[in-house]
Amino acid sequence: MASSLDALEREIETQNALFHELRLSGSDPAGLEEVKKKLGELKRSLGQAKAKAAGDSSAASGSKDGAAKKKERILLKTPKGTRDYGPTEMFCREYVERIVKDCFTTYGGSCLDTPVFERKEILAGKYGEDAKLIFDLMDQGGEQLSLRYDHTVPLARYLAMMGGTNTQSKLWQVGKVYRRDNPVMSKGRMREFSQADFDISGVWDPMIPDAEVISLVCTILSKLDVGEFTIKINHRRILDGIFEVCGVPADKIRTISSAVDKLDKLPWADVKKEMTEEKGLDPSVADRIGEYVKHKGGPELLDQLFADTALSANASAKQGLEDMGLLFTYLSAYNVLDKISFDMSLARGLDYYTGIIYEAIVEASAPPGFKANPPVDPSSAPAAPPKKKTKKVKNENGEEEEEIDESQVGVGSIAAGGRYDNLVGMFSAAASGDAKSKGSIPCIGISIGLDRIFAIVWPRWVEKGIRSKETMVYIMAAGDGLLVERMKLVKELRDAGIKADFLAKKKPKLPVQFAAGERDEVPFAVILGENEIKEGYVMVKQQRWEMVDGKKVKVLAEGDEKGERVNRGQLIDWLRATQIWKDWEEGKL
Amino acid sequence: MASSLDALEREIETQNALFHELRLSGSDPAGLEEVKKKLGELKRSLGQAKAKAAGDSSAASGSKDGAAKKKERILLKTPKGTRDYGPTEMFCREYVERIVKDCFTTYGGSCLDTPVFERKEILAGKYGEDAKLIFDLMDQGGEQLSLRYDHTVPLARYLAMMGGTNTQSKLWQVGKVYRRDNPVMSKGRMREFSQADFDISGVWDPMIPDAEVISLVCTILSKLDVGEFTIKINHRRILDGIFEVCGVPADKIRTISSAVDKLDKLPWADVKKEMTEEKGLDPSVADRIGEYVKHKGGPELLDQLFADTALSANASAKQGLEDMGLLFTYLSAYNVLDKISFDMSLARGLDYYTGIIYEAIVEASAPPGFKANPPVDPSSAPAAPPKKKTKKVKNENGEEEEEIDESQVGVGSIAAGGRYDNLVGMFSAAASGDAKSKGSIPCIGISIGLDRIFAIVWPRWVEKGIRSKETMVYIMAAGDGLLVERMKLVKELRDAGIKADFLAKKKPKLPVQFAAGERDEVPFAVILGENEIKEGYVMVKQQRWEMVDGKKVKVLAEGDEKGERVNRGQLIDWLRATQIWKDWEEGKL
Repeated sequence: MASSLDALEREIETQNALFHELRLSGSDPAGLEEVKKKLGELKRSLGQAKAKAAGDSSAASGSKDGAAKKKERILLKTPKGTRDYGPTEMFCREYVERIVKDCFTTYGGSCLDTPVFERKEILAGKYGEDAKLIFDLMDQGGEQLSLRYDHTVPLARYLAMMGGTNTQSKLWQVGKVYRRDNPVMSKGRMREFSQADFDISGVWDPMIPDAEVISLVCTILSKLDVGEFTIKINHRRILDGIFEVCGVPADKIRTISSAVDKLDKLPWADVKKEMTEEKGLDPSVADRIGEYVKHKGGPELLDQLFADTALSANASAKQGLEDMGLLFTYLSAYNVLDKISFDMSLARGLDYYTGIIYEAIVEASAPPGFKANPPVDPSSAPAAPPKKKTKKVKNENGEEEEEIDESQVGVGSIAAGGRYDNLVGMFSAAASGDAKSKGSIPCIGISIGLDRIFAIVWPRWVEKGIRSKETMVYIMAAGDGLLVERMKLVKELRDAGIKADFLAKKKPKLPVQFAAGERDEVPFAVILGENEIKEGYVMVKQQRWEMVDGKKVKVLAEGDEKGERVNRGQLIDWLRATQIWKDWEEGKL
Repeated sequence: MASSLDALEREIETQNALFHELRLSGSDPAGLEEVKKKLGELKRSLGQAKAKAAGDSSAASGSKDGAAKKKERILLKTPKGTRDYGPTEMFCREYVERIVKDCFTTYGGSCLDTPVFERKEILAGKYGEDAKLIFDLMDQGGEQLSLRYDHTVPLARYLAMMGGTNTQSKLWQVGKVYRRDNPVMSKGRMREFSQADFDISGVWDPMIPDAEVISLVCTILSKLDVGEFTIKINHRRILDGIFEVCGVPADKIRTISSAVDKLDKLPWADVKKEMTEEKGLDPSVADRIGEYVKHKGGPELLDQLFADTALSANASAKQGLEDMGLLFTYLSAYNVLDKISFDMSLARGLDYYTGIIYEAIVEASAPPGFKANPPVDPSSAPAAPPKKKTKKVKNENGEEEEEIDESQVGVGSIAAGGRYDNLVGMFSAAASGDAKSKGSIPCIGISIGLDRIFAIVWPRWVEKGIRSKETMVYIMAAGDGLLVERMKLVKELRDAGIKADFLAKKKPKLPVQFAAGERDEVPFAVILGENEIKEGYVMVKQQRWEMVDGKKVKVLAEGDEKGERVNRGQLIDWLRATQIWKDWEEGKL
């Protein structure tokens, strides 16, 4: 009895995973409905079986048998917080990656690839409280290893290893990183997720690399068509200056900074409470901080802060304000000032930032009610964001934890980064055992959350009915199948670099071949026949697919119902000269 | 004392890693020489320090202090069997990947992406003895996970999960896989390495998908320019038939098959010894096997085997021979027969193959003395390969193991695969608990070893002096730096999709800017000046780089020593109309 319950529960889990997979990959509704129906039936069966088991006194005696069976079975699913990406999604993901990589090289970047795991000591002490989210490998008689948590630390390790041989670089990395976080798959928050990083290392003149990186993010987000976006910018030294001026004790600066970091999710009252009740800050100090961090704006905010004599007398703040002034000049040259919001509440958690910090937000990634680039009025208090609700839940180890009510949170920032001038030096010093090591290399970088971008772009692709395959030509034959002839022609086209396919059957019926080509939305159907082969020509039908009322519809070229007779020897040139071919090459199809 | 010895040893290890890194990335000889020199000095210091420590009675008392210091230090290196790939190598690797992916889509493939780790039970029982090479993750209060060992098992898991929704597919995967093997970095044998897989699933007419996959491998290897190559093909059912006909007991067939698999590395005498002495096979049976497995050839070998009445009376062999006959017909249609060697000694280790099996070998990947595609003479005995020498070494756990003398072995096959008709069904059956599950989906696929291909292609790139960056334009300014003007122009070009860069300094000297552009081998130098800006034009110098006596030399376009005056508003069109631009687009630079 127990074993059949177990089998049902496993089957339900498998079907659930399948349902999720199909739903996310935008499968056809009929298929989805079928799986859903099956899922319903299984759940009903489980209910009945449980009811029966409850009234069945022999249930306990069957448990050993159940355990034995259990061992033979396997659960067909991907690990928690991970998933497969099938063909249609990957077509879109590859497109997103291609644009990002192309922007990276357009800005002079070169690719770096590091291993997916690092020696555990490399990651140690870099992520503060979040270190608990690091995936460790089992020690199998060798080294202690961990999966990489981001691309920044491996990059810093690489730069430290290269030492003085090449300190000035523009490097990009695209790949997966790993965090044992609470996954929210629908919002692109996963345990395995893709990040695209771009970093500029080395000593350059102030704020020039900083402006390069911010201009790059603007270029990428514009090209990806993610909708309106804002780059929030702040400066660690301005924040530190504010804390000093307001009277925060030196040993409380980092912890008060992380309280400020929560202002994008919590109202000021809650943050103040954390500062005073939890962290023991004097309420009047907190109020002074509140006056500063409510500001957001552009260059005019900078003027206002320079005019603040208390702040501009502080060495740290003064340095930060001067950096910001230079940055604004350069961002104006790059023509991206309209995307920028100097946001004094932005703090960013990671300890290693030393200069400017930034986050890109798009409307689609923000919590309900958020508007990108709201009209700036520095004198007004910030609108209170929706209050975040939390609930107590049990984690994997059975401990109670607070969990965020995800309906109140967006997918978060889609890109973030900052300047980190000491991280590489930390590695050089730790490796040489000399704290005064000369291996310090200043860096600035950005991490782009590809899954979050994909979560925004993908529904638009589905809506527009974008093709998910690049096959251009489908080779078919009437009558006896002409398999070898189809093979010869498909190979000829492929050798010429034309994406072509055919049905892997010996004598398929013509309508079956047409259906196969149409499933791939192939624009050219090339038909072979005995006569055609003898006389050295083929028949070609051209077809387009268009979205009509949310459904894909085939549209034959005018007067092309019967197809066109094309000389076999000229087929490749003929195909490339058609309007459909040109439209495809220009990305219009 | 112990702590300074320790520091020296660590420093030597770090320098060793750096030296290796630089050497593999083809760094300039001067830099290499410097690192080598430093390494030499360190080793001498270590020797002296050790000599001193030996005569120093206080060495022991210092050990506690040494241990404390040791804890603070970290070793700057990548995990064993892994490495970073820097910009120049990645440029070449990305090129290789792009060609492989392009061929995959040209053959009608769609991309699949699965997580880098799987639930441990998914990998269990799929790799026979090699299961010990699987990397496991630490169980951190959740699931038991392992890094993927190949792409085939995750694909089969995916197909089983998708169930009956889409059984016919052509899917490709490109990504890293993990094996705790003994790494030989110089030959591209790593613990983390890249594989590119292409698999056709579903019921099709016999041998058509099989021919597609083999034609695909030929297309890829031809495009990658890896030199002469051979695809060795055999059939599991022919092998099984031979073993039956020769009189191998049923329970010994798999183990005798894995002895045969070693014939590409060991002479027949050694293999026979393993069969008879280790595995207890009757010597006369072994001799009969030896008569069969020495054959290699083309369709004519097939005729010879059909004429062998004993073999063709065996049901298994007959089925295999018929499959091979059909395959040869199709491979002839694909025009790749000249690349094929029907090799009866090819056995392949993995248990799950059920039909044809194949391996691609190039001369560059073979052991010393190997020639791809030797003239076929089925009557002659195969030339004895060089005898492999093994030596006893200690593994990570301190156990003694036999290690292969790597100088006698090539990088091995660069691609391999076969038909596996039951693997997906195994998953479906194991998940449903029903051995007669209808979830069986026949598959055939190929795995391409990208690191091995890279190890062949990379030295040719270095030799040809191929650029490692795509930046086309370097923006410079004379006099006062004109930083904002340079930024405006670089942004304008980048917005037009032109890869452009500039020196991130406020007032750099002109020769420094030229040197920076030349380091990237940028073909266009665009120079701004006060007058030029006022009058609305720029100066452009065109330059090519050519290999002369193994060194890169700059060649200015004729009459272009002073550069050309170009209207600022027409710069983008002007650049795109130049011969250098067209040559670059056509891949000639």
